[in-house]
Amino acid sequence: MTTADTSMTHGFRPPAVPDVDVRGFWGDRIDAIADRTVMILYERCVAAGMLDQMDPDRPVPELRLPFHTRPDGTPDTANVQMFWDSDIAKVIETAAYALYRKPNAELEARIDEIIDMFHRLQQPDGYVNSWFIRMQPGRRWTNLRDCHELYCAGHLIEAAVAYFHATGKRKLLDVMSRYADHIDAMFGPGPGQKAGYCGHEEIELALVRLGRTTGEQRYLDLARYFVEQRGQQPHYFDLEAAERGADPKQFRHRTYDYNQSHLPVRQQTKVIGHAVRAMYLYSGMADVATEFGDDSLTDALKVLWDDLTTKQMYVTGGIGPAASNEGFTDYYDLPNESAYAETCAAVGLAMWASRMLGRGPDRLYADIMEQALYNGALSGLAVDGARFFYDNPLESAGGHHRWKWHRCPCCPPNIGRTVAAIGSYMYAVSADEVAIHMYGESTARLKVGSTPVTIGQRTDYPYDGRIAISVGLDEPASFRIALRIPGWCRAAKLSIDGEIVDVAAIEDRGYLRIDRLWQGGETIQLDLSMDVRALHANPAVKADLGRVALARGPLIYCAEEVDNQAGLNSLVLHGGPGNARIVPMDDFNGAVAIDIDARRERWSGWERKLYDAEPPVLENGTARFVPYHLWDNREPGEMLVWVRAQR
Amino acid sequence: MTTADTSMTHGFRPPAVPDVDVRGFWGDRIDAIADRTVMILYERCVAAGMLDQMDPDRPVPELRLPFHTRPDGTPDTANVQMFWDSDIAKVIETAAYALYRKPNAELEARIDEIIDMFHRLQQPDGYVNSWFIRMQPGRRWTNLRDCHELYCAGHLIEAAVAYFHATGKRKLLDVMSRYADHIDAMFGPGPGQKAGYCGHEEIELALVRLGRTTGEQRYLDLARYFVEQRGQQPHYFDLEAAERGADPKQFRHRTYDYNQSHLPVRQQTKVIGHAVRAMYLYSGMADVATEFGDDSLTDALKVLWDDLTTKQMYVTGGIGPAASNEGFTDYYDLPNESAYAETCAAVGLAMWASRMLGRGPDRLYADIMEQALYNGALSGLAVDGARFFYDNPLESAGGHHRWKWHRCPCCPPNIGRTVAAIGSYMYAVSADEVAIHMYGESTARLKVGSTPVTIGQRTDYPYDGRIAISVGLDEPASFRIALRIPGWCRAAKLSIDGEIVDVAAIEDRGYLRIDRLWQGGETIQLDLSMDVRALHANPAVKADLGRVALARGPLIYCAEEVDNQAGLNSLVLHGGPGNARIVPMDDFNGAVAIDIDARRERWSGWERKLYDAEPPVLENGTARFVPYHLWDNREPGEMLVWVRAQR
Repeated sequence: MTTADTSMTHGFRPPAVPDVDVRGFWGDRIDAIADRTVMILYERCVAAGMLDQMDPDRPVPELRLPFHTRPDGTPDTANVQMFWDSDIAKVIETAAYALYRKPNAELEARIDEIIDMFHRLQQPDGYVNSWFIRMQPGRRWTNLRDCHELYCAGHLIEAAVAYFHATGKRKLLDVMSRYADHIDAMFGPGPGQKAGYCGHEEIELALVRLGRTTGEQRYLDLARYFVEQRGQQPHYFDLEAAERGADPKQFRHRTYDYNQSHLPVRQQTKVIGHAVRAMYLYSGMADVATEFGDDSLTDALKVLWDDLTTKQMYVTGGIGPAASNEGFTDYYDLPNESAYAETCAAVGLAMWASRMLGRGPDRLYADIMEQALYNGALSGLAVDGARFFYDNPLESAGGHHRWKWHRCPCCPPNIGRTVAAIGSYMYAVSADEVAIHMYGESTARLKVGSTPVTIGQRTDYPYDGRIAISVGLDEPASFRIALRIPGWCRAAKLSIDGEIVDVAAIEDRGYLRIDRLWQGGETIQLDLSMDVRALHANPAVKADLGRVALARGPLIYCAEEVDNQAGLNSLVLHGGPGNARIVPMDDFNGAVAIDIDARRERWSGWERKLYDAEPPVLENGTARFVPYHLWDNREPGEMLVWVRAQR
Repeated sequence: MTTADTSMTHGFRPPAVPDVDVRGFWGDRIDAIADRTVMILYERCVAAGMLDQMDPDRPVPELRLPFHTRPDGTPDTANVQMFWDSDIAKVIETAAYALYRKPNAELEARIDEIIDMFHRLQQPDGYVNSWFIRMQPGRRWTNLRDCHELYCAGHLIEAAVAYFHATGKRKLLDVMSRYADHIDAMFGPGPGQKAGYCGHEEIELALVRLGRTTGEQRYLDLARYFVEQRGQQPHYFDLEAAERGADPKQFRHRTYDYNQSHLPVRQQTKVIGHAVRAMYLYSGMADVATEFGDDSLTDALKVLWDDLTTKQMYVTGGIGPAASNEGFTDYYDLPNESAYAETCAAVGLAMWASRMLGRGPDRLYADIMEQALYNGALSGLAVDGARFFYDNPLESAGGHHRWKWHRCPCCPPNIGRTVAAIGSYMYAVSADEVAIHMYGESTARLKVGSTPVTIGQRTDYPYDGRIAISVGLDEPASFRIALRIPGWCRAAKLSIDGEIVDVAAIEDRGYLRIDRLWQGGETIQLDLSMDVRALHANPAVKADLGRVALARGPLIYCAEEVDNQAGLNSLVLHGGPGNARIVPMDDFNGAVAIDIDARRERWSGWERKLYDAEPPVLENGTARFVPYHLWDNREPGEMLVWVRAQR
């Protein structure tokens, strides 16, 4: 339908979504999104009143904040309408991938209507933002810190690129290119330009995406400017506040840590503040590093990557433990039941990881990308595609369930667009190499340099570690194929057309890198061992002391009440994972559960006392664990990832 | 020097403090208070500027809030000067007991000066409150909810009674009796009277104490009125707010749960709100129940007692887990490291327990009283008497240490007066019975009915369970002696003058009740077994899952870094407490430590990773536990009560 990026000067790039036909595990999920989620997203945006705000032909609506009370019934004053453009943009992006997957004339017509609204909304100078055009006219570019203005532009740009790739329609791409030109004129170091950047990062990565699609270098340069300018002194958010007559110190989130503008980006060494913002910034930085071959930026990102993944990440790939700042707190502060671990943040981590792979295959990044996608991100979407988690705790006493919607509706379309675009996370290409970062039943039509290559995968991954990879070519060609050996895999076997290959000899940073003159028609057989692991957490993570999390392949497992009765914390595993059995699940296509011997403390008799010198009686039994991403898809109840264990 | 209460119509009453000469464990602590603490308290109150506010002959001072910034350096707007009268009152009370213990002319002169200030401060109508006379004149009795006005009166009444008992001086007692008369005229159901009560309970128990000392029934009646009126509709705090032109809904603590006025007291079934307030209310209710023989009030208290002690109490007897309301949260919410467990709250629990014994000996109350006093309360005072804990966590990563002072200086004099008055918690008398609630080296000069009885205890309790009790009489007399058998004691042996007594035959609600014609000169030998216990918490207390707390006798033990090196959470006890050894401590007079076999996880090698399928290596070793109340008296470091345990 279309090709991927037009320019290709540095590093590895993901394919465009339509270039990968995904089936199997992820294919079922994409079908659910195309069949159901995307229309739900659209309808709920309409019900929320978003189109009334965006359509310039309708009367300017009153402020309305639907679905908009705190759990205790009191009204909340935060204004989410200000960034509705970004929500509708992610719906458009999800719809683009859904339309590619399954043509749907009714959906396409509705998306075209929305695109028309933005087209009509666009000002003569190119500016497009429904909030500042219709709700708060005259205030544009006066509060970049709080108002998500460039953030909205970024998501609309991403939507425009996706819709163009999926449908070939250019209208939104043209609107957003004009808007990008306006932003490019407005921001920069020149006289009369604003030396600012957005309080919520996103525009950076979007401009790179737009630059790659349009071939326009100015967009890449502007992305780089926003990255470089962040956190410079005098601080733009101070100047901007003073200019609008506000006290810069009266910032709701107190310090600029919150939006990662406390320091210039190369001086930042601690992952900090609002988790989604942090991930989007680092994603943009990685894109700029790839585009400009900027090692100093990559080095800064490596420090941040290490900081996040060795001190601040849940085993699910969820990040940002605290609700108060939707973000990071202290090192090793990873409480399970109160984990915020927003779906968008896990999505953002996968985005960042994917972009770290822009400098070349490295398991350090791909392992975490996979961990976040299969666990902390995917848990945000029900199997039927109709309900959503905003926060993704690793333990629930039974009261945590998926929402039909959320007053801050960022997560539903974000997990929707991410799952629907999963093909672009699975593969990457450079001028002379194809990398397979994630395995899964799929067919990818790629271009290595100028050589068209079709890669097919036949596999039941992630439930089975055997993958048959076919290489399709129009004519023989020399290039490299890089196959990831996940860090969790204890033994990998490789053969090409039946001929066994010594994997140790060709492994580089966790990838088997196969240089060869490919004839086309080869079958690469990769067998990854997939044992049940009992993971221990760093002992500084207090919440997980004396506990283990079961895992198999890329999947983190959890216990649910429906399989184990209530009182999951009365379960105590004994010995290692050696006695674990793999059991097919009835409810979910191809999914496997883990049954494991466990003792259980008898908790009856404790109702009337708080402390007792008699230990609880232990009973022998079995516990069942299911993939974390599947939890809360059956009868509601307790859930537990980190289960008590003794040796 | 003086006798105990003058009236004796119902139940059991504690002796006046000077009637019990305490030595041994508590005696050392009382000496430290007399030698050091009391002068520290006085001097820090002076340094805080309290006397400038109280002395009517000095210029009215400006508002000043010494020691008064938050840990992060920002100023705090809460006003503690409003209740300085109560702080100085508790200092006077502590000084009274110290002066009884050790004459100190200089201290006595200074206390007399303060008493003179209150004497000069007293208004012609009897009113005495330094804040409303000098700092906010004209506002008296306009905000009982927030301003601690009757609370201050209550503490000054307690100080007056104590100072009278200890020194025989009546000046403060007379001042406070006149003030009580004024309050009695001001509050009540009559025309022109206010139907109110204090937002911070205290006046109730103080009026009972004043009534018992002066024999004035009106004070008992007024105490009862305040108890009965609490939480009645229309709600006094609503009416009062409206009268001063305020919106009753703009209450900082949102609901009247905070001060236990959300319901009439007999309808309250859940211990709720600010912990110290709750304890003082229940103490006052128990006093009223004793004085008026009010079973319905006692029944309400039994429900609350059960609620607190089976669902909301730390194993140390600490209560009120949350800093936000200085009080209670959800059932079984007992986090260890963030435990607020204010010293004053544990003191308040001991006060309540002591008063529940007013209706007769019952281990249900005395066990908890002892648990709170020896652990969660006593921990608030350093062994040398010079430093104080405000909050008493059950775990520390090494950063929690005693304060020299606290901006809200309620705890230092509260633990001071309580320890100095410990004799009044140890014994109680009725018309025909002496109860020994707590054991300890001491001599008590009591009156059973009109019979003088001297009870002596020779013992190393709480470090040893053997107690020799002597009965001294002027002439033979028939009465009962009740000896508590603590719930933790697995085997008790009793002999009188060498003759073994069958304890099972005479046990009633955990007390051995010995009816006898005593000749005088008898020796009662009581041997309480004192095994090391490994306590398990109710499994609903998530913080304690898979952990045990070691205890011996009434003492809860903890591990400290100084004995065990850092990383206390790497310790894992195996098996029960059978391998525990009792070891004398070098540092503290007579104290014993517990050494116990333990494994230790090797935590080195975890610096660079967050999760690992390899379990940490276990090493065999020994762990040392010391009495919780002694923690942070040696080199600073980590502390842990609930230690990991496996079976």
